[in-house]
Amino acid sequence: MKIEVYMEDVGRRARAASRILTSTTTREKNTALSATADAILDNRSTLQEANEKDLAAGRDKGLDDALLDRLALTEARTQAMADGLREIAALPDPVGEITDLTYRPSGIQVGYMRVPLGVIGIIYESRPNVTADAAGLCLKSGNATILRGGSEAIHSNQAIRDCIHVGLGVAGIPGDVVQVINTTDRAAVGELLRMDRYVDILIPRGGKSLIERVSNESTIPVIKHLDGICHVYIDDWAEPEKAIEVADNAKTQRFGTCNTMETLLVSSSITPDVLPQLADRYRQAGVELRGCPETCAYLPDAIPATEEDWATEYLAPILSIRVVDDLDAAIDHIETYGSHHTDTIITEDMGRARRFLAEVDSSSVMVNASTRFADGFEYGLGAEIGISTDKLHARGPVGLEGLTSRKFIVLGDGHIRR
Amino acid sequence: MKIEVYMEDVGRRARAASRILTSTTTREKNTALSATADAILDNRSTLQEANEKDLAAGRDKGLDDALLDRLALTEARTQAMADGLREIAALPDPVGEITDLTYRPSGIQVGYMRVPLGVIGIIYESRPNVTADAAGLCLKSGNATILRGGSEAIHSNQAIRDCIHVGLGVAGIPGDVVQVINTTDRAAVGELLRMDRYVDILIPRGGKSLIERVSNESTIPVIKHLDGICHVYIDDWAEPEKAIEVADNAKTQRFGTCNTMETLLVSSSITPDVLPQLADRYRQAGVELRGCPETCAYLPDAIPATEEDWATEYLAPILSIRVVDDLDAAIDHIETYGSHHTDTIITEDMGRARRFLAEVDSSSVMVNASTRFADGFEYGLGAEIGISTDKLHARGPVGLEGLTSRKFIVLGDGHIRR
Repeated sequence: MKIEVYMEDVGRRARAASRILTSTTTREKNTALSATADAILDNRSTLQEANEKDLAAGRDKGLDDALLDRLALTEARTQAMADGLREIAALPDPVGEITDLTYRPSGIQVGYMRVPLGVIGIIYESRPNVTADAAGLCLKSGNATILRGGSEAIHSNQAIRDCIHVGLGVAGIPGDVVQVINTTDRAAVGELLRMDRYVDILIPRGGKSLIERVSNESTIPVIKHLDGICHVYIDDWAEPEKAIEVADNAKTQRFGTCNTMETLLVSSSITPDVLPQLADRYRQAGVELRGCPETCAYLPDAIPATEEDWATEYLAPILSIRVVDDLDAAIDHIETYGSHHTDTIITEDMGRARRFLAEVDSSSVMVNASTRFADGFEYGLGAEIGISTDKLHARGPVGLEGLTSRKFIVLGDGHIRR
Repeated sequence: MKIEVYMEDVGRRARAASRILTSTTTREKNTALSATADAILDNRSTLQEANEKDLAAGRDKGLDDALLDRLALTEARTQAMADGLREIAALPDPVGEITDLTYRPSGIQVGYMRVPLGVIGIIYESRPNVTADAAGLCLKSGNATILRGGSEAIHSNQAIRDCIHVGLGVAGIPGDVVQVINTTDRAAVGELLRMDRYVDILIPRGGKSLIERVSNESTIPVIKHLDGICHVYIDDWAEPEKAIEVADNAKTQRFGTCNTMETLLVSSSITPDVLPQLADRYRQAGVELRGCPETCAYLPDAIPATEEDWATEYLAPILSIRVVDDLDAAIDHIETYGSHHTDTIITEDMGRARRFLAEVDSSSVMVNASTRFADGFEYGLGAEIGISTDKLHARGPVGLEGLTSRKFIVLGDGHIRR
């Protein structure tokens, strides 16, 4: 079949399936999620065989170890997929929630009803567990899903798809609700990016080049974050102990995550009380330090930072450090070089905390807490499909609520407008 | 000055102004709104002179009467602009509202803070009062605004801009917060559509061709509705009296508005009880009727409707009518031909009302109420900047809340992630 014909068919089926989901009950959706978890555990060996095929092909193609690791469906990851689906089943159903229903002077009642977005396209790379996680979140939020995983994970993704279809079947929900693109033809992605007549939103998950391609070429709205250039600002009124703990944790707890601090800003008056001790911690963790001239004066082993450093997401054991005059200079730096992801101030001063919260325009703004907390599970969303640094719709970790929107409902009794 | 240089300057100023607005107080914004209202009333004669220039130029250019009417700043419209600004001042400030702040097991508190979108571009046609209305809503919601009105209203818009700048000055807010493009060069719109580095959202207001151009060419997210193909469905279980009142009002109260019914759907079993009487009402109001074969059998004067009729927003005294088998057929019709704007069911049956509310995917879904209620004032939003039929972000009438979004805030006391 020609790829355009195939994708057109996928899109049409997804749109039709999203209509069916408007009358699918919470119980049916939860049954499907639990039954999928069962099917995944019952079919561990099948999943492993499929994954072995992908891994073997990957090794033949010479994929690097990091990629092969992401691709591997270990026992623990298979269990985690099943557990994740059961957790999503346990979350409250956001769909149909009616809020703010109030009487207006005309006599009508006006309120909001939470509703699915419709059809969600997910484009992702090597991790096959995304197939189950994303399908589960989209199903619970009442959306039909078109999943396009990496070609290196095609057998694993198809095997997971089979488990999802078993689960949907148990609940009597048509399989078209979750479709996994069954071709490695790269043209399929190009088609998907332009299927605005069928797809309401696209969520790219993976490296920056994938996300850039999707946002540049898509005719469909995209929920995404490109960069996570996160800052910790240590204010003059910080408690040094807390500052050191938080700034250490924000960088060294994990290096490769989007909510890891990439630039540390330190107010000049507190610098001698925190920077040398922090630098010791970073050195112990093997973090390379790049600093402004003042930083380098304090830390002779620091490399001079360039303009580019301030705008770089290292995703690695590298940290840029800048000494700033005051809160205004810190906010200026964050607004100039940041990526609107997650930024935190360390201070005991209520007025400065209040200003930082109001004036820093990021999807997560924190006081006295590590940037590493910016995460759907930590925030209590139950699960997340990604993090958005866009300003419209959902900002920050996107869970079930971000996969829905609200329409107006009006109840009357023959009311007319005069 | 070259147009690209001018627009670049406008964009940079707007971005800088939006930063200033993050620390502007509610009182300052309200002072500016009231002072602008005062300035508009104090400068009625100046506004009228400017408007006369536009009207004279319009007459010379041979603009039609409808356009000249929209262009005219009558005494009543000038008063309405001032009143509207005072009403916006009286609304609660949405910016900075913190909600859902709860403790998580880790000890951090996580909640939402409502924040401005940043810089909003408004592209509109002849009505000069949009300049004051849009500027007022954007200011109250903490957004900087770039306004691009129709070239035929350039003098009126500049005069209103002067009043706004007087008002901003009284409050000590820089004038760059509200910028009105001071050229009639059409290239300015093209520039604005691609200023994604400065502008966070575009709102086109006007005819369909303007809105189509903006959504097709813009690299910036757009809040819009293209069509208002609104339906009233009279269910078998409707109370005929209520059905007739609502279906009459939805069509005849005003013909040219986007929330006017364009297609009437009638369940076949109730057709004899409502259709002949309704047809009398429509005939009295001068409405041309176009119907499906069954409708034409009941109403011999109805013109046979074509496939195109079901997908047409007439904005005129024309109504298409279709007799349908049941609720499913009605929902099918709405989902196939509708524009996701506003649709209503007339029924006394709770189960059908419940299904209609859940299954019709429109920005406003109603029971036993006229589609004409779909309006920011009627909904209690205080004012509206437009109506959105998109699925992301805001659906339906967009007021102050739709001009903002929510970021996450996290409060800790030196908390780190383990």
